[in-house]
Amino acid sequence: MKNYSIAKSRRLRSTPYTSRIEKQGVTAYTVYNHMLLPAAFGSLEDSYHHLKEHVQIWDVAGERQVEISGKDSAKLVQLMTCRDLSKSKDGRCYYCPILDNEAGIINDPLILRINENKWWVSIADSDVILFAKGLAIGNKFDVKITEPNVNIMAVQGPKSFKLMEKVFGEKITKLKFFGFDYFDFEGAKYLIAQSGWSKQGGYEIYVENTESGLKLYDHLFEIGKEFNVKPGCPNLIERIESALLSYGNDMDIEDNPYECGFDKFINIESNVEFLGKEKLKKIKTEGIKKKLMGIKLDIKEISLSGSLDLKDEKGNIIGELRSACYSPHFGKVIGIAMMKKPYWNVSQTVNIEINSNYCPGKVCDLPFI
Amino acid sequence: MKNYSIAKSRRLRSTPYTSRIEKQGVTAYTVYNHMLLPAAFGSLEDSYHHLKEHVQIWDVAGERQVEISGKDSAKLVQLMTCRDLSKSKDGRCYYCPILDNEAGIINDPLILRINENKWWVSIADSDVILFAKGLAIGNKFDVKITEPNVNIMAVQGPKSFKLMEKVFGEKITKLKFFGFDYFDFEGAKYLIAQSGWSKQGGYEIYVENTESGLKLYDHLFEIGKEFNVKPGCPNLIERIESALLSYGNDMDIEDNPYECGFDKFINIESNVEFLGKEKLKKIKTEGIKKKLMGIKLDIKEISLSGSLDLKDEKGNIIGELRSACYSPHFGKVIGIAMMKKPYWNVSQTVNIEINSNYCPGKVCDLPFI
Repeated sequence: MKNYSIAKSRRLRSTPYTSRIEKQGVTAYTVYNHMLLPAAFGSLEDSYHHLKEHVQIWDVAGERQVEISGKDSAKLVQLMTCRDLSKSKDGRCYYCPILDNEAGIINDPLILRINENKWWVSIADSDVILFAKGLAIGNKFDVKITEPNVNIMAVQGPKSFKLMEKVFGEKITKLKFFGFDYFDFEGAKYLIAQSGWSKQGGYEIYVENTESGLKLYDHLFEIGKEFNVKPGCPNLIERIESALLSYGNDMDIEDNPYECGFDKFINIESNVEFLGKEKLKKIKTEGIKKKLMGIKLDIKEISLSGSLDLKDEKGNIIGELRSACYSPHFGKVIGIAMMKKPYWNVSQTVNIEINSNYCPGKVCDLPFI
Repeated sequence: MKNYSIAKSRRLRSTPYTSRIEKQGVTAYTVYNHMLLPAAFGSLEDSYHHLKEHVQIWDVAGERQVEISGKDSAKLVQLMTCRDLSKSKDGRCYYCPILDNEAGIINDPLILRINENKWWVSIADSDVILFAKGLAIGNKFDVKITEPNVNIMAVQGPKSFKLMEKVFGEKITKLKFFGFDYFDFEGAKYLIAQSGWSKQGGYEIYVENTESGLKLYDHLFEIGKEFNVKPGCPNLIERIESALLSYGNDMDIEDNPYECGFDKFINIESNVEFLGKEKLKKIKTEGIKKKLMGIKLDIKEISLSGSLDLKDEKGNIIGELRSACYSPHFGKVIGIAMMKKPYWNVSQTVNIEINSNYCPGKVCDLPFI
C-alpha cells in the first residue's frame, strides 16, 4: 500500500513525548482522541518480536482521561456502563463498555476508581467527555467533568517488571493486574497501574507532572539498557494475536456488547441503573445475529484500511473483516471479523477478495493465542 | 519538517471518494471526525493559486452530519447553540457555535434546517453526536439522533458556478449564499448548498446515494475540463488568508465565542434557552481577557504542529500562535493567534522562537484579505 503523509496541525495534538519519539525513529502515526499516537518505529514485525522478549516504552498520551468528580460522579459513571460498579474499590481499574440508550457501544475504556467521588475514564478513540457532559447537564448531576493534563507512558514487555522495579523499588512488583497505586520518582508522584495494551505484561504511568515525566522517560531509557529497552507503540500484530479489541476498528456504535463477547461485563441482573439496560435484556432474550470471531487466511500479507466482505462458497456475504495482519506465529494472515449468524462454526470456510484474487480462509475462536 | 506516514485502519474511516483521490494524486491526509480528510495534492501553493482561479472538487466527507429529528428536535438543537434559531427557515444553513454549560466551544458547525422537525448539524472535528445523545437522554427529549450516510463533495473556486450550472441547470445559480435546495442528477436527488470551506465561492453537495454520487464525481471531472477542474481539499493558505477559523486549531473548549469574534452569533438578549447563556452574560459584563487576532511574521516559511508562544520585547508571553502558513499574497508568514489582553493593538510587536531564532512580527486584524 502506498504511504501518505500525515498533515500535522494543532488540531492533531502532539504529546509531551512527541519530540523524543521523533528523534527515536517513529515512522508512522495514527490519530487517537485528536492526538498523535505512534503506530510504527520501522518494521512492525521487528517491533513485535522485541516486545515479546524485552521491554518497550510507549507514548500512549492519546489515551486521554475524562475526570468525573463530585457528589453524583459514581451515579454518572455507572449510568454510562453496563458493568456493575457498585462493589468497585479504590485503586482498581475496570474494563467497561460504555453504551448509549440503544446499547450501541460508544467506547470501551478502563475506568479507574480514584475514590468514590473521583473517577478517571481512560478512553479509547471517541469524545466520551461530550457524552458525559450532555448526560450530566440533562440530568442536573452535581459533577465536574474535565480532561486533566495526564499523558500516559506505557512500559510493556516481559522485562518491564525488572525495569520498573529498578526505578520504583520492590513495592511495584506487588501491584496486582488492573490495580494501581502511587509511586515517587525524584519527588514527583505518579499513579501507576499494572495494565497496558499488550498481553506481554507491564505498566501504565499516568504522568501528571509533565516536566518530571520527561525526566522519567529519559531515565527509563538510560537505566533500561541492560534490559534492551526500545521505544515502541501498541503493536498491530501482537494485539490481534492476543485479540485485544480496538474501538473503531473491531467494534463501534452499530454493535452491542454481546456481539463483541463482553458478556462478563454486562450486568443486566444487577440493581444498578445504566443506559441500554432494557435493550440489553431484549437482545439477551432474542439472541444476537452477528458476533466477533477470528479469521485465518492462507495468505502472507494484508493491509487493511477499512472493512472487507467475507463470503461463502456461493458468494454470499457472511461477515466483515475489520482488522488483520500477517502473524509470524501462525505463518499466515489473521484477523478479527464480525460474522453473521449462523456462520459461527470454527472451520467455517470464508473467501475474501484482494486485488481481484479470491483468498480462502477459516473462522476460528478468539483469542488466537 | 520530516514527513511521517499515516497508519490506515478501519478506525480512520475511508470515504467513498478515497480510492479516486488516491489515483488523482493526494499526498497527505489529516483525520477529521474519525475519517480521512485529504490535506494536500502535492504543492499547497500550486493548489492555492489554482483554487483562486479555477475550480476544484473536494472530498470533504469528514464533515459528518448529525441528524436530529423528532418532536423535540428544534428544542435540542437550540439548546446546543448560542445563536437564536427561533426565526430560522427551512432550506437555510446557519453557522452556529455549539457550547457547553460553561460557554466553552464544543464545535462550530453549519446547521441545516431541513424542516422544523429535522436538522442536519454539519460538524467540525468533535463527536457532537455524543453530546446531543447525552443531552437528549438526560432531558428525556423525544428525538432521534443518527449519523446518516452522507458524504459531502465540495465544488469550490470561481468557476464552480459555471461548472455546476452545466450539470444542474440555471436553477442552481439562483441559490443564495448559505441557502440549499434539492437538485437531480441522473434520477438521484441531491441536497446542495451554496457554501464551502473557502472564500472563493462554490457549493457543497450532500451525497446520500453513494453509487450515484460517484458517478456525479466522475462526471464533474469529465465535463469540467473546460474550466480546468482539479482535485483539491481545504487549502491551509487560502483558509488562513480568509480567516476561516478551524475548530481544534484556532479555538477549542477552553475558549468562549466572544474570544473568537463570534459576537454576531451570540444572542444572549433573546428569549431562547441555550447552554452557557448565563456564563456568556457574565463574560459580556466582565469583558474577555484574550481574543483571536491575525499575526504577520517577517519570515518566509513555517510549519506548525502545535501552539507557539508569542512574546513581547521583554520575553513575556503575550499570545499563542495556533495556525500559520506562508502567504504568497503578503510574501510573508501569516497566522491566527489567541492574544492576551491588552496586546490587541494592531502593530503590536511580537517575537516568536523558531529553531532557536527569534523572528519579529506584528499583530493585525482578521481577516487578512
